Amino acid sequence: MSAERRAPVTVIGLGNMGTALAAAFLEHGHPTTVWNRSHEKTKALAERGARVAATPAEAVTAAELVIACVLDYDALHTVLDPVADRLPGRALVNVTSGSPEQARDFRDWAEGQGAGYLDGAIMTTPPGVGRPDMMFLYSGSRDTFTAHKETLDVLGDALFLGPDPAVASLYDAALLGLMWSTFTGWLHGTALVGADKVAATEFTALANRWLGGAVSGFLTRYAAQVDEGRYPGDDATVDVQIGAIDHLIHAAADRGVDNALPELLQATMRRAQAAGHGGDSYASVIEVLRGSGGAKA
Amino acid sequence: MSAERRAPVTVIGLGNMGTALAAAFLEHGHPTTVWNRSHEKTKALAERGARVAATPAEAVTAAELVIACVLDYDALHTVLDPVADRLPGRALVNVTSGSPEQARDFRDWAEGQGAGYLDGAIMTTPPGVGRPDMMFLYSGSRDTFTAHKETLDVLGDALFLGPDPAVASLYDAALLGLMWSTFTGWLHGTALVGADKVAATEFTALANRWLGGAVSGFLTRYAAQVDEGRYPGDDATVDVQIGAIDHLIHAAADRGVDNALPELLQATMRRAQAAGHGGDSYASVIEVLRGSGGAKA
Repeated sequence: MSAERRAPVTVIGLGNMGTALAAAFLEHGHPTTVWNRSHEKTKALAERGARVAATPAEAVTAAELVIACVLDYDALHTVLDPVADRLPGRALVNVTSGSPEQARDFRDWAEGQGAGYLDGAIMTTPPGVGRPDMMFLYSGSRDTFTAHKETLDVLGDALFLGPDPAVASLYDAALLGLMWSTFTGWLHGTALVGADKVAATEFTALANRWLGGAVSGFLTRYAAQVDEGRYPGDDATVDVQIGAIDHLIHAAADRGVDNALPELLQATMRRAQAAGHGGDSYASVIEVLRGSGGAKA
Repeated sequence: MSAERRAPVTVIGLGNMGTALAAAFLEHGHPTTVWNRSHEKTKALAERGARVAATPAEAVTAAELVIACVLDYDALHTVLDPVADRLPGRALVNVTSGSPEQARDFRDWAEGQGAGYLDGAIMTTPPGVGRPDMMFLYSGSRDTFTAHKETLDVLGDALFLGPDPAVASLYDAALLGLMWSTFTGWLHGTALVGADKVAATEFTALANRWLGGAVSGFLTRYAAQVDEGRYPGDDATVDVQIGAIDHLIHAAADRGVDNALPELLQATMRRAQAAGHGGDSYASVIEVLRGSGGAKA
């Protein structure tokens, strides 16, 4: 694709996210066709230069690269089933939220129609679309990814996770779970120091440095332990951390801060301890999360 | 202090952490005196040039800067009460783990003896001591901090958090709580993607980028909301996230991964929703953690 002629793109579904995707393509000079169930949502994009398709069939045939961002998989089939005969040879990139199993089933359907299929997960909110540091995760057809990476990079950093179309959706769920856990632990700490008049912004400057430094270093180290299935407790053991979290629980209880989260974390550590991992690193906790019972081999 | 003559330092207590502190001072050329209840632990440091004090009194009088790193506050009083008359004019830096209240009581005792007092929290494991990117948190006497910052920087990045001696200990608890929450959320995600054969190291490369990028950006933004007591849900609302975490819970359940953590997170979000924060950002969850009941004003 030359700089003079950007690849045409179609965006189907203009919720907040679909609208942000179409706007990013328009901003980068891609001829962009949009379609939405309700016509209302197309107006602002039309003013910015989008071509508004009157039907899904018109939308799908307007570009080789078709991005679908609708409410759910039912909506996806409602829109695309009637135009399945227009899909052969096109690249269908589906960023509709759903389960890993839905992604696999839909890949089977799309490839059955002769489309190249990518499942995508957008790891930012609509205002973050277009920022090159934001992660857009794709899995499915490597050929489709390679052919359209340059266009997809307009939305954010396009990363390919492999041929299983379920993987993007799994990463999405796993990364959001990490986010909510981190959010809640951070809010608990913010409430704790806040009880003694420390401002959230002051605490958070250090919390971010802590996450990006020491904590990130532990994750890298522990990831290698998880892959090896061995968790040497040479830095800090589960036993030591079960004791240390008592300080947190007591300080928070004294200040009226809800302790459901640290109590669950301590109970989880105790399950790892009971399974024989007291002298191991925190990474060994994965053994009890996996539901294998966690008994040490 | 000139480059030729480093300030003398005393380290009391030679567990793994006290030993690492003394070793860092020796490595940077500080005349270092050590004392430990059992003599055995002093040998390796003596070989590296430490002066071994025969008694706590000898240790305390060997340097203006005295760092105490013992098992708990009982041990601290056992060692220092008998030598209280040697403390006037010295800087006592206490990195013994304990509660915020213990830190305040001990500051009162130490200042009553005429010592300048700093309470410290070491945000790394012993192998991390001496790395300039590791955070060492201090609160208490600003004069004491200023006078000895250059020496304390040998251990890691010395940060002063204010005059309340309890604050270093509170930050310690809060940051560790954030760490355990992040660890457990990360292990849950690692178990989830691992069930579909994604290596922990592969997932973790993206997890670290996610934490350091988008998640860190949210924390900075939400911290300002917490300080303002207003939580505009213009990026992602509690209502939306209650729905989104269902995807995680279902995908994990399908793979036999323990869901206690995401279920607690969802229940916590629901409490915020019930308190009127459904349309607010995730930062509003702090209202239910604070134990104020979370009712929206």
